[in-house]
Amino acid sequence: MPEFFKVVTPEQVFDALAGFSRLAVETVPLDDALGRVSGADIASPEDLPPLPRSTMDGFAVRAADTFGASDSIPAFLDVGGAVAMGRLPGVAIGRNQAAAIPTGGFLPKGADAVVMVEYTCPAGEEAIEVTRPVTAGENVLGTAEDVAAGEAVIPSGKRLLSQDIGLLAGLGITEVAVYRRPRAVVISTGDEIVPITADPPPGRIRDINAHSIAALVKSSGGVATMFDSVPDDPAQLTAALEKALASADVVALSGGSSVGERDHMVSVVTSLSGSVVHAHGIAISPGKPTLIASVGGKPVFGLPGHPVSALVVAQVFLAPFIRYLGGEALKRGPAGARVRAVLTASVHSAQGREEYVRVKIEARQGQTSARPVFGKSGMLSTLVKADGFFVLPIHAEGIPAGETVDVILF
Amino acid sequence: MPEFFKVVTPEQVFDALAGFSRLAVETVPLDDALGRVSGADIASPEDLPPLPRSTMDGFAVRAADTFGASDSIPAFLDVGGAVAMGRLPGVAIGRNQAAAIPTGGFLPKGADAVVMVEYTCPAGEEAIEVTRPVTAGENVLGTAEDVAAGEAVIPSGKRLLSQDIGLLAGLGITEVAVYRRPRAVVISTGDEIVPITADPPPGRIRDINAHSIAALVKSSGGVATMFDSVPDDPAQLTAALEKALASADVVALSGGSSVGERDHMVSVVTSLSGSVVHAHGIAISPGKPTLIASVGGKPVFGLPGHPVSALVVAQVFLAPFIRYLGGEALKRGPAGARVRAVLTASVHSAQGREEYVRVKIEARQGQTSARPVFGKSGMLSTLVKADGFFVLPIHAEGIPAGETVDVILF
Repeated sequence: MPEFFKVVTPEQVFDALAGFSRLAVETVPLDDALGRVSGADIASPEDLPPLPRSTMDGFAVRAADTFGASDSIPAFLDVGGAVAMGRLPGVAIGRNQAAAIPTGGFLPKGADAVVMVEYTCPAGEEAIEVTRPVTAGENVLGTAEDVAAGEAVIPSGKRLLSQDIGLLAGLGITEVAVYRRPRAVVISTGDEIVPITADPPPGRIRDINAHSIAALVKSSGGVATMFDSVPDDPAQLTAALEKALASADVVALSGGSSVGERDHMVSVVTSLSGSVVHAHGIAISPGKPTLIASVGGKPVFGLPGHPVSALVVAQVFLAPFIRYLGGEALKRGPAGARVRAVLTASVHSAQGREEYVRVKIEARQGQTSARPVFGKSGMLSTLVKADGFFVLPIHAEGIPAGETVDVILF
Repeated sequence: MPEFFKVVTPEQVFDALAGFSRLAVETVPLDDALGRVSGADIASPEDLPPLPRSTMDGFAVRAADTFGASDSIPAFLDVGGAVAMGRLPGVAIGRNQAAAIPTGGFLPKGADAVVMVEYTCPAGEEAIEVTRPVTAGENVLGTAEDVAAGEAVIPSGKRLLSQDIGLLAGLGITEVAVYRRPRAVVISTGDEIVPITADPPPGRIRDINAHSIAALVKSSGGVATMFDSVPDDPAQLTAALEKALASADVVALSGGSSVGERDHMVSVVTSLSGSVVHAHGIAISPGKPTLIASVGGKPVFGLPGHPVSALVVAQVFLAPFIRYLGGEALKRGPAGARVRAVLTASVHSAQGREEYVRVKIEARQGQTSARPVFGKSGMLSTLVKADGFFVLPIHAEGIPAGETVDVILF
């Protein structure tokens, strides 16, 4: 029986993946930039604010005029007018003068601070009493205090959030350089595969992997194209792979990467010119029969045919790699939010492989628990019933019930 | 000076939001269902697997024939053939017979278990020695053992992940009932607002809120339409709001909901027929000047004009509400993944308001730390520099450095 010829650790897989280049950068309108990854440091073209603005509702004053003010000895100021939103104030503040100002209003000339309305009271028609002193700059956002012209506001490689979009809008940046979205072609292989629209004849099964892996690519920020499944035939597999490589940034095959008679993946990939095998066999469970290769510099994933194994391997390696191609730092391990949870049952390990144990998260007596979702190998329902999984390190013997584990949420 | 006339707690806001109805359900193709929320329990139309399948590479056998097998006294079995993928096996297994079977292969008639290839060795051309017994059902996924026909596989209200898409594909479910995406219209108000494409004349500022709030709606699974900003004029505000209500599931205005002279939001909303004010003023910081209302049963958010306050309030209330309208359970608090982190500096609280303290997450000596991002009120850069925020409860006096807080990540 043939053997996996290059079994490597997960760490070695990530080393190989880090050797691929990120994609090119393109320019998109600001409103299409949400969730994209910045392709360069973005510097502010201008000061924000351009002139001092009030951060409170109150009165613009000269701070020196409020020195020593208190409830018993308030400062009396003449109110010379009001600052309106939407234009620079026409009024100027002289000694012992004040002007009403709303939050966000630009300070009138002469003023250097704002007294909150709570610390004033009217004193006749056109004057106020100030009962608390302010220092220069108090309740004022000075010129460029938020952002200075030339300052880097967004670093390269950041996935843009709504607040980033807001800041860029405020700076008048209407186009953003972002990494191109990774294009993945997803192909299932195997004589037994039929399209999901078909009623499978006896012995055949529907093409789960094309749809689940394409969905994972999309949720990692990529664009996925599903090809029709390919039977276990080297010529047809070669043709499909060459067609995929012509358009894709990464090709994700599934099936045929194991060591049985019909597993032609490795021989097909290595027969193509410019092919390098980075891994054939990874010390993980599930998912050992995985191929990581490159053809003409383009990455090719040969995932297990088994739908559960294929999706777990894709979550651990393909998802962070899609994010990396699309501009993020390479996360060495499964993407996804994490939660600390107490294991409700002991799990044992076949040492020598990194294991991904699926769990359901439960709140029990104020404590977050992780209940292992046991089930026979390959049960799709275990993936759907679990909320996430934790990683059992490659040399661990197991983890006893009651220990805390780091669960990566789906 | 006018006052907020219905100041409520965050909990009361969520009570009001829970009173709105979720949107209608529509049917979409499976490959468009990723990230959408299931609109009904989905039951399996068939058994998975339809017939027993092997979970290992090995030999299909009758378990009884392996009883007592060991290294010293192996069981000898005749190999009558091999199971191929893609069709039902033609062979049938009789007493003391075996058939080679790959992982995923359907069991031949007569076989009730699979011996892993590791526990066999060849014995001549057409026989094997089995060195370990198997029990009936071992290494076999029985009919309906993964999913039984009629079993609910996806509950209503679940945001669909790649594994859900995979399972539905495997069951031949090519269309899915999902909640309609919430449609939000976003409108900034204020005389000072100019489009982001403009170079603002002195005293004016660009329309940050339309873009940041629209982005937040999108990242919460909604569809956002930005209207042009509206000046502080009741007639124009009324016209814009009526136009928005005609097409939107939720309207998010910003600005004008405070208590200054130019804050017409409340009077405009209450002048419309069928209007109810649920909150005018929320006991939070930042973000007190917020209006939550309904007009003819449709929700209207009047967010603060201040971009930082507007986005924080939207993150805390609008984002979970958009997810709720779109089919999820209403999360009473900010959406987003959480991480436990140790506070690096004490924070103090103006009691009587729930506060949202922005922090940067840092790894220090193997510990996850949360460093408060201090900065004057309204600095946009504080939002961009922070990785998330934690909630200081409404009656807390503050939290000392060294305490652990629950940070909600952006």
